[in-house]
Amino acid sequence: MNRAEVETAAWRFESDGRGFVRRTPLWKLPGHALGVACEEVWLKLEQLQVGGSFKARGMYNRLLANPIPAAGVIVASGGNAGIATAAAARALGVKCEVFVPTVSSPAKQQKLRELGADVVVTGAVYAEALEACLARQRETGALLTHAYDQPEVVAGAGTLAMEIEQQGGRAPDSVLVSVGGGGLIAGVAAWFEDRSRVVALEPELAPTLYRAREAGEPVDVAVSGIAADSLGARRIGAIAWEVTQKYLPQALLLPDAAIRDAQLALWQDFKLAVEPAAALGLAALRTGAYQPRADEVVALVLCGANLDPATLA
Amino acid sequence: MNRAEVETAAWRFESDGRGFVRRTPLWKLPGHALGVACEEVWLKLEQLQVGGSFKARGMYNRLLANPIPAAGVIVASGGNAGIATAAAARALGVKCEVFVPTVSSPAKQQKLRELGADVVVTGAVYAEALEACLARQRETGALLTHAYDQPEVVAGAGTLAMEIEQQGGRAPDSVLVSVGGGGLIAGVAAWFEDRSRVVALEPELAPTLYRAREAGEPVDVAVSGIAADSLGARRIGAIAWEVTQKYLPQALLLPDAAIRDAQLALWQDFKLAVEPAAALGLAALRTGAYQPRADEVVALVLCGANLDPATLA
Repeated sequence: MNRAEVETAAWRFESDGRGFVRRTPLWKLPGHALGVACEEVWLKLEQLQVGGSFKARGMYNRLLANPIPAAGVIVASGGNAGIATAAAARALGVKCEVFVPTVSSPAKQQKLRELGADVVVTGAVYAEALEACLARQRETGALLTHAYDQPEVVAGAGTLAMEIEQQGGRAPDSVLVSVGGGGLIAGVAAWFEDRSRVVALEPELAPTLYRAREAGEPVDVAVSGIAADSLGARRIGAIAWEVTQKYLPQALLLPDAAIRDAQLALWQDFKLAVEPAAALGLAALRTGAYQPRADEVVALVLCGANLDPATLA
Repeated sequence: MNRAEVETAAWRFESDGRGFVRRTPLWKLPGHALGVACEEVWLKLEQLQVGGSFKARGMYNRLLANPIPAAGVIVASGGNAGIATAAAARALGVKCEVFVPTVSSPAKQQKLRELGADVVVTGAVYAEALEACLARQRETGALLTHAYDQPEVVAGAGTLAMEIEQQGGRAPDSVLVSVGGGGLIAGVAAWFEDRSRVVALEPELAPTLYRAREAGEPVDVAVSGIAADSLGARRIGAIAWEVTQKYLPQALLLPDAAIRDAQLALWQDFKLAVEPAAALGLAALRTGAYQPRADEVVALVLCGANLDPATLA
């Protein structure tokens, strides 16, 4: 995984001509506007991406990079990866099957159907839905998308970092990125390499990268808490592990209460409606878990907004 | 009211050094991303302004442009103008009294108190709260801010148009602006003059400018409907009347149902949480009330986000 793969993904989005992936705004604010003692905070408003999260970049790149069989594409996900795959498939006019466990909410299933996906509800937990999805894939030969651990998915996510640099006119000094399975941070780190300090942020209750760094290798962890629906991967992805070992100086943990406070502050003070996973960057700055220098430009990635807006009231 | 006054307001914001007024993002999208048959739609994300609406620009300019007496500032408003005045006063460290009628919601009163304002709840309707406010102003000599009909307030709003042109790299072909008392559209039209087609949008149920144009002069109108809390002025302001008579080719009316549909689409498809008043531009494009040319660049001003997010669910 490297800059060239990110550039290829950006080229695919550009030359495709459909304009499916949105160039989301970069909002530059003085640090004091967010109560942070640093020069500038850049907010990458990626929650405004098509499908409501950064996942559209990776899924669309995966679909553009591969021949798509008559059986279409297939994915196991009740969350942002499923929505992004369904939206990308619709844009390309190909079939899409999404496997979700019976615990997934009817609202999310409905959203997937509105995007034209065939939704298969099966298995009590995600692992069972995944197993059924993989069996079906072997049967039909459909193109499988993975939420975070495929090279095209990581490279697609990396285009977000390329945009930050283009829109900012330079690389920020640091970039704070939330980590679940690690697809986003792998893409961001592959783009910036050593030119920015890329910092991993995880909820204390979903510490896939933090525990892997302690153990010296990816390990399964228990996941729960406020951001589990989007950062709830059980193990850091193999690609993310490799890239983060190479480039990442820091992986930080944050308590759910700080994440929730930051999510509410983003709404109340900035009218940005984001899911908890997108609030870890501000939480790290407000709690002092990450302390920038006075002259530092810090970029935060607001990665998603698939939330019930009533939870902000 | 002219470009020079807008430039002076922008200079005040810049030289003030506090960074109170935010430079909000301009989001450029291809027309097709919004289902509109035009080249580009530019969304000015002014709902992200401090205080949650464009009003902060005008109020802050009013306060910077005048000596502020020991009695501080005073305003009658239960809505965005009150919030913006209170926030501006807090930023400058001066006292602020806000008069609101008894019908105003406890949540809005609480928001004003959180911003450090002294809230005076009096009178059954807005007109009575205003009367009490004016009597109090004569007594204390406090600096009065008006929601839309003061030159500094209009010029401050105009800085939003100046930013659109700077951020876009050119003037858009057209700018669609919601109208209540007309402070925003007056500032926008004063900035663009004949260089953009500035189009006024009003709810059918709050047609202050439309009726004034029919009558040939400002007249009182009955106001109600989905956007009445922010576009519910009873009569177009004198400054807005003068400026729009000079520059505005079109004033359009929109039904509440189309406004509500556009508000929900902005949330569901773009994760932009805005109040109904901010959705009139998209409503005009989606209903065909305003039909751009195929090669047109249309700018929409998302003017506020002071809403209960549960209303988006």
